[in-house]
Amino acid sequence: MAMENFRQFLVALFAAVLFGVVSIIFVLVWVLQYREGLAWDGALGEFNWHPLLMVTGFIFIQGIAIIVYRLPFTWQCSKLTMKFTHAGLHLVSFILAVISVVAVFDFHNGAKIPNMYSLHSWLGLTAVALYCLQLVLGVGIYLIPITPVYWRAAVMPLHIYSGLFLFTSVVAVALMGITEKLIFGLSDPKYKDLPPEAIFVNVLGLLLVIFGALILWIATRPSWKRPSDQVLHTLHTNGGGEDNTKVGPSLSQLTDGADSETTGDVRKRINKLDRADSLIAE
Amino acid sequence: MAMENFRQFLVALFAAVLFGVVSIIFVLVWVLQYREGLAWDGALGEFNWHPLLMVTGFIFIQGIAIIVYRLPFTWQCSKLTMKFTHAGLHLVSFILAVISVVAVFDFHNGAKIPNMYSLHSWLGLTAVALYCLQLVLGVGIYLIPITPVYWRAAVMPLHIYSGLFLFTSVVAVALMGITEKLIFGLSDPKYKDLPPEAIFVNVLGLLLVIFGALILWIATRPSWKRPSDQVLHTLHTNGGGEDNTKVGPSLSQLTDGADSETTGDVRKRINKLDRADSLIAE
Repeated sequence: MAMENFRQFLVALFAAVLFGVVSIIFVLVWVLQYREGLAWDGALGEFNWHPLLMVTGFIFIQGIAIIVYRLPFTWQCSKLTMKFTHAGLHLVSFILAVISVVAVFDFHNGAKIPNMYSLHSWLGLTAVALYCLQLVLGVGIYLIPITPVYWRAAVMPLHIYSGLFLFTSVVAVALMGITEKLIFGLSDPKYKDLPPEAIFVNVLGLLLVIFGALILWIATRPSWKRPSDQVLHTLHTNGGGEDNTKVGPSLSQLTDGADSETTGDVRKRINKLDRADSLIAE
Repeated sequence: MAMENFRQFLVALFAAVLFGVVSIIFVLVWVLQYREGLAWDGALGEFNWHPLLMVTGFIFIQGIAIIVYRLPFTWQCSKLTMKFTHAGLHLVSFILAVISVVAVFDFHNGAKIPNMYSLHSWLGLTAVALYCLQLVLGVGIYLIPITPVYWRAAVMPLHIYSGLFLFTSVVAVALMGITEKLIFGLSDPKYKDLPPEAIFVNVLGLLLVIFGALILWIATRPSWKRPSDQVLHTLHTNGGGEDNTKVGPSLSQLTDGADSETTGDVRKRINKLDRADSLIAE
């Protein structure tokens, strides 16, 4: 990674972590200062775990899990270590999301409020279920050694798309949850009177959107990829033991023989080109 | 585009148009059957233009505008014609969004409901403003002939990211709007009692999410790009007059000379590789 490109990455990463941590502080202040605090009593103190664990786990930790391969200080770790880190962070995020869902069901049951009526609940529970599926398929395809290399390469575009789409959906569902809670939770003054709590939590919503935007930006810059995922590195080191795809024929063969190559080979070369692209563009 | 790949594109396109059109029908049935119909009277009939124009313009037409370069039956048109189509559809989407915002402000003022208190309104108006900025910058950079080719290539990743991010944000803001309307609009039975209208409009929310997911999928598949944006075509035709970037050195030069090339050249080659990738992957 060229120095200027590296500096831009660090700025984006710092901003993402900053907005993520400030979001967590905002949701903590919301439930502790403006609301009933935290408890596991079937009442509002239990409900309050729902926004706290969703923002901390299902948004912040999921976001970090998505970009973990791109952190330069992890590039000395093996690819397998990073895969376990990626999967482990997503697992933590999933567990916190499940606890968070249990909290709101418990609260609803205690307060005799129906479950699963709102669009927020429909989309939110769908996101949790699909996230679980993504986790199981991800482990099955990318961590179990017997899965063929061809499958891994073929499914990767879908794995990336689904992961980014689920992350984005979770942020959107959180914004719907904030909307619901401010309408139901504020009575005198109401949400429409815009009391300090309403402004404060609206700002939390903005912070979450900016955090989401930064994670999506970092995750979709080709030049910020882990070097061992880029062909330049692979060609120099002639393939580390941790790499999933073999080193293919030279770039010049692409002009005629593209159709006879494996997807992995081509993908590697695209990474190389992405990197070259960024070296020029910066 | 290989035949199998082409078939997959058509399925995705058909599904996107289907979910988009059904969403518009759902919002029409919602305001005409379940709500007060359409009028421009400062009352609820005027408010109802807000969801209708947002779904029709700011979601459906914006979505089509995003993928318009990818429609195979437009590949015989010049790139300039398609740029005007892309910009024109976004302009229509923007105008409908503005009328839609005027409708809700008029309604609020007539009903003595405060404006701009909700997170929905904060994010929604921000999205409209940034969409306007994106439109102005897009025209300035990609339609005014004097903008240097280097700028066009350098800004393209940001143009694409911002466009997809704004589209996604608009869908998310619509889901928040649906949530607000169902809470405020349903009184006896309430939203939590899940009357038919609540189920119907929750389903509208799901349809919008699926439409959004399909547009994002179509827009991010490299192998579904317009052929004139792919180097294979450019190499065969030796560069059409409508192309922004010149045809660079042969692919084999990339192995040593990547750093000395322009971004446009490398990007073209990446398109070629993306295409090769897809030919193999399908």
